[in-house]
Amino acid sequence: MRAYLAGPDIFLPDAAQWAERKREVCAQYGLTGVSPLDSMSDTPPEWAVLPEWRRIALRNEALIGSCDLMIANLTPFRGPSADVGTVYEVAFMRALGRPVFGYATTATGFTQRTLDFANGRGGISAEPDGSWRDAEGMLIEQFGLFDNLMIEAGILASGGVLVVEEIAAERRWTDLSAFERCVRAAVA
Amino acid sequence: MRAYLAGPDIFLPDAAQWAERKREVCAQYGLTGVSPLDSMSDTPPEWAVLPEWRRIALRNEALIGSCDLMIANLTPFRGPSADVGTVYEVAFMRALGRPVFGYATTATGFTQRTLDFANGRGGISAEPDGSWRDAEGMLIEQFGLFDNLMIEAGILASGGVLVVEEIAAERRWTDLSAFERCVRAAVA
Repeated sequence: MRAYLAGPDIFLPDAAQWAERKREVCAQYGLTGVSPLDSMSDTPPEWAVLPEWRRIALRNEALIGSCDLMIANLTPFRGPSADVGTVYEVAFMRALGRPVFGYATTATGFTQRTLDFANGRGGISAEPDGSWRDAEGMLIEQFGLFDNLMIEAGILASGGVLVVEEIAAERRWTDLSAFERCVRAAVA
Repeated sequence: MRAYLAGPDIFLPDAAQWAERKREVCAQYGLTGVSPLDSMSDTPPEWAVLPEWRRIALRNEALIGSCDLMIANLTPFRGPSADVGTVYEVAFMRALGRPVFGYATTATGFTQRTLDFANGRGGISAEPDGSWRDAEGMLIEQFGLFDNLMIEAGILASGGVLVVEEIAAERRWTDLSAFERCVRAAVA
């Protein structure tokens, strides 16, 4: 079984090394880890004229399509939500009808993270109906979830699970225990 | 032709009214606008036991699946990138192989927005190879794009285009001129 390893881990220093460590964890559980950093064995010739960023994206879509499941790092990235590149990949796999498993290394919920963010950007206002809005008047989701409802509902509908674990901030991107729990859930 | 109208507009006060205005613009160009706020004519009976947030997500996925194309508001939302719920929907439609058209109401590029964000969160560092990293050591994309490369490349690969227009901050969520340009591009 091939597992696509989505996540902002690709932005880490030594990203290739971290991909290799994740691959080793996958191998312990009988999965073949596929990294967004992997090259493809044969690339369609028509891609040759495209700029690098388009070739990267098409390769990632093709790699996702070559996998049986996805394991996505949904740890919040530069804002209250997960990395948008990772969310793109989660939804792409979901639309292909294959299971997506997610994990994150902070346990703080989405509503609290959004409130914290909004409080740093002009504050929040409480509406008579109990809802909260940010300084631009935009509603703050209050479903008690870990991130935007599309992500969590998509994972569950795909047959996957979401693993959330509180890990110290300085190890948030490098501690692989939540990842390993997610791999175990995927092979269960 | 049915066009799914993705975007964080659903978080606006009077969101239903804004969906209606967008639908009117679509109608002028012969498109039927479909809003994430729309109800479905017949809901699968097995959804009845699910919590509201899961029913919303399944309904949105089903509505996307019922549309011929998507028009997505990719204006940055609570961070350097687009709303993750919208990005999820863009990727879902892309994986279905149908065209996605995107628009945004600020012209500042992704690299600059990410640098601004990172400067407010501990600063950035310049690497010897010319790349930049945030305070957590995570790479900052420098492809000269409008957002994460998966989004922009996915839109182009789908046959769509991305329309970017600088609109004054106080009208960023309510001025529909960039939306209308995007609708025109979609029917062209």
